[in-house]
Amino acid sequence: MAKSIFYHAGCPVCVSAEHDILNLIGSDNVEVVHVGENKNRIPEAEKAGVKSVPALLTPNGHVLHINFGASMADVKG
Amino acid sequence: MAKSIFYHAGCPVCVSAEHDILNLIGSDNVEVVHVGENKNRIPEAEKAGVKSVPALLTPNGHVLHINFGASMADVKG
Repeated sequence: MAKSIFYHAGCPVCVSAEHDILNLIGSDNVEVVHVGENKNRIPEAEKAGVKSVPALLTPNGHVLHINFGASMADVKG
Repeated sequence: MAKSIFYHAGCPVCVSAEHDILNLIGSDNVEVVHVGENKNRIPEAEKAGVKSVPALLTPNGHVLHINFGASMADVKG
Protein backbone atom coordinates (compact mmCIF):
# COMPACT_ATOMS: atom_id res chain seq x y z
CA MET A 1 0.00 0.00 0.00
CA ALA A 2 1.22 3.50 -0.76
CA LYS A 3 2.03 5.57 2.29
CA SER A 4 -0.19 8.20 3.79
CA ILE A 5 1.41 11.47 4.88
CA PHE A 6 0.64 12.92 8.31
CA TYR A 7 1.25 16.68 8.41
CA HIS A 8 1.58 18.29 11.81
CA ALA A 9 3.14 21.25 13.57
CA GLY A 10 4.17 19.82 16.91
CA CYS A 11 1.20 21.20 18.82
CA PRO A 12 -0.30 19.07 21.62
CA VAL A 13 -3.37 18.28 19.50
CA CYS A 14 -1.04 17.17 16.70
CA VAL A 15 1.07 14.91 18.91
CA SER A 16 -1.98 13.19 20.36
CA ALA A 17 -3.50 12.66 16.91
CA GLU A 18 -0.17 11.39 15.57
CA HIS A 19 -0.02 8.68 18.22
CA ASP A 20 -3.59 7.64 17.45
CA ILE A 21 -3.06 7.55 13.69
CA LEU A 22 0.20 5.61 13.94
CA ASN A 23 -1.47 3.11 16.27
CA LEU A 24 -4.42 2.68 13.92
CA ILE A 25 -2.71 2.60 10.54
CA GLY A 26 0.75 1.39 11.51
CA SER A 27 3.85 3.57 11.56
CA ASP A 28 5.26 1.79 8.48
CA ASN A 29 2.32 3.10 6.47
CA VAL A 30 2.66 6.77 7.36
CA GLU A 31 5.27 9.41 6.61
CA VAL A 32 5.23 12.05 9.35
CA VAL A 33 6.05 15.63 8.29
CA HIS A 34 6.50 18.49 10.77
CA VAL A 35 5.60 21.50 8.64
CA GLY A 36 6.75 23.92 11.34
CA GLU A 37 10.30 22.56 11.10
CA ASN A 38 10.12 21.76 7.38
CA LYS A 39 8.45 24.81 5.89
CA ASN A 40 9.60 23.75 2.41
CA ARG A 41 6.95 21.02 2.64
CA ILE A 42 4.13 23.56 3.14
CA PRO A 43 3.51 24.26 -0.58
CA GLU A 44 3.06 20.55 -1.35
CA ALA A 45 0.70 20.19 1.62
CA GLU A 46 -1.40 23.16 0.53
CA LYS A 47 -1.48 21.89 -3.05
CA ALA A 48 -2.82 18.57 -1.74
CA GLY A 49 -5.62 20.44 0.04
CA VAL A 50 -4.32 20.66 3.60
CA LYS A 51 -6.02 23.62 5.29
CA SER A 52 -5.01 22.96 8.88
CA VAL A 53 -2.90 20.55 10.89
CA PRO A 54 -2.93 17.83 12.00
CA ALA A 55 -4.07 16.35 8.70
CA LEU A 56 -3.67 12.99 7.00
CA LEU A 57 -3.20 12.81 3.23
CA THR A 58 -4.37 9.36 2.14
CA PRO A 59 -2.72 7.34 -0.66
CA ASN A 60 -5.66 8.18 -2.92
CA GLY A 61 -5.20 11.91 -2.44
CA HIS A 62 -7.93 12.68 0.08
CA VAL A 63 -7.19 14.97 3.01
CA LEU A 64 -8.56 14.08 6.43
CA HIS A 65 -8.37 17.11 8.70
CA ILE A 66 -8.18 15.73 12.22
CA ASN A 67 -9.37 17.74 15.19
CA PHE A 68 -7.81 21.20 14.92
CA GLY A 69 -4.35 22.26 15.93
CA ALA A 70 -3.39 25.18 13.73
CA SER A 71 -4.26 26.67 10.37
CA MET A 72 -1.65 26.59 7.64
CA ALA A 73 -1.50 30.39 7.92
CA ASP A 74 -0.51 30.02 11.59
CA VAL A 75 2.22 27.54 10.68
CA LYS A 76 3.69 29.92 8.09
CA GLY A 77 3.59 32.91 10.44
CA MET B 1 -7.14 -5.11 18.54
CA ALA B 2 -10.29 -3.59 19.96
CA LYS B 3 -12.52 -1.96 17.40
CA SER B 4 -12.71 1.73 16.71
CA ILE B 5 -16.16 3.27 16.24
CA PHE B 6 -16.82 5.60 13.31
CA TYR B 7 -19.77 7.91 14.01
CA HIS B 8 -21.36 9.62 11.03
CA ALA B 9 -24.63 11.12 9.86
CA GLY B 10 -24.74 10.14 6.21
CA CYS B 11 -23.60 13.52 4.90
CA PRO B 12 -21.31 13.61 1.85
CA VAL B 13 -18.30 14.58 3.99
CA CYS B 14 -19.10 11.63 6.26
CA VAL B 15 -19.38 9.11 3.42
CA SER B 16 -16.07 10.18 1.90
CA ALA B 17 -14.30 10.05 5.25
CA GLU B 18 -15.84 6.65 5.99
CA HIS B 19 -14.38 5.18 2.79
CA ASP B 20 -10.97 6.60 3.62
CA ILE B 21 -10.99 5.35 7.20
CA LEU B 22 -12.17 1.87 6.24
CA ASN B 23 -9.47 1.68 3.57
CA LEU B 24 -6.78 2.80 6.00
CA ILE B 25 -7.72 0.85 9.12
CA GLY B 26 -9.61 -2.07 7.61
CA SER B 27 -13.36 -2.52 7.79
CA ASP B 28 -12.98 -5.41 10.25
CA ASN B 29 -11.47 -3.00 12.76
CA VAL B 30 -14.21 -0.38 12.69
CA GLU B 31 -17.83 -0.35 13.78
CA VAL B 32 -19.78 2.18 11.72
CA VAL B 33 -22.65 3.97 13.48
CA HIS B 34 -25.09 6.29 11.67
CA VAL B 35 -26.21 8.57 14.49
CA GLY B 36 -28.89 10.15 12.33
CA GLU B 37 -30.63 6.79 11.94
CA ASN B 38 -29.65 5.50 15.40
CA LYS B 39 -30.29 8.45 17.67
CA ASN B 40 -30.15 6.17 20.69
CA ARG B 41 -26.38 6.01 20.09
CA ILE B 42 -25.98 9.80 20.42
CA PRO B 43 -25.66 9.86 24.25
CA GLU B 44 -22.83 7.31 24.19
CA ALA B 45 -21.07 9.27 21.44
CA GLU B 46 -21.36 12.53 23.33
CA LYS B 47 -20.16 10.88 26.52
CA ALA B 48 -17.08 9.67 24.62
CA GLY B 49 -16.37 13.25 23.55
CA VAL B 50 -17.80 13.34 20.04
CA LYS B 51 -18.61 16.98 19.21
CA SER B 52 -19.24 16.64 15.48
CA VAL B 53 -19.42 13.96 12.82
CA PRO B 54 -17.70 12.29 11.14
CA ALA B 55 -15.58 11.23 14.10
CA LEU B 56 -13.55 8.18 14.97
CA LEU B 57 -13.45 6.89 18.53
CA THR B 58 -10.22 4.94 18.93
CA PRO B 59 -9.86 1.78 21.04
CA ASN B 60 -8.01 3.81 23.70
CA GLY B 61 -10.87 6.29 24.02
CA HIS B 62 -9.57 9.20 21.98
CA VAL B 63 -11.86 11.02 19.57
CA LEU B 64 -10.54 12.05 16.18
CA HIS B 65 -12.88 14.62 14.64
CA ILE B 66 -12.40 14.29 10.89
CA ASN B 67 -13.11 17.20 8.58
CA PHE B 68 -16.51 18.59 9.47
CA GLY B 69 -19.89 17.29 8.43
CA ALA B 70 -22.35 18.26 11.13
CA SER B 71 -22.38 19.14 14.80
CA MET B 72 -24.05 16.77 17.22
CA ALA B 73 -26.68 19.47 17.78
CA ASP B 74 -27.48 19.36 14.05
CA VAL B 75 -27.82 15.59 14.16
CA LYS B 76 -30.26 15.75 17.07
CA GLY B 77 -32.37 18.46 15.45
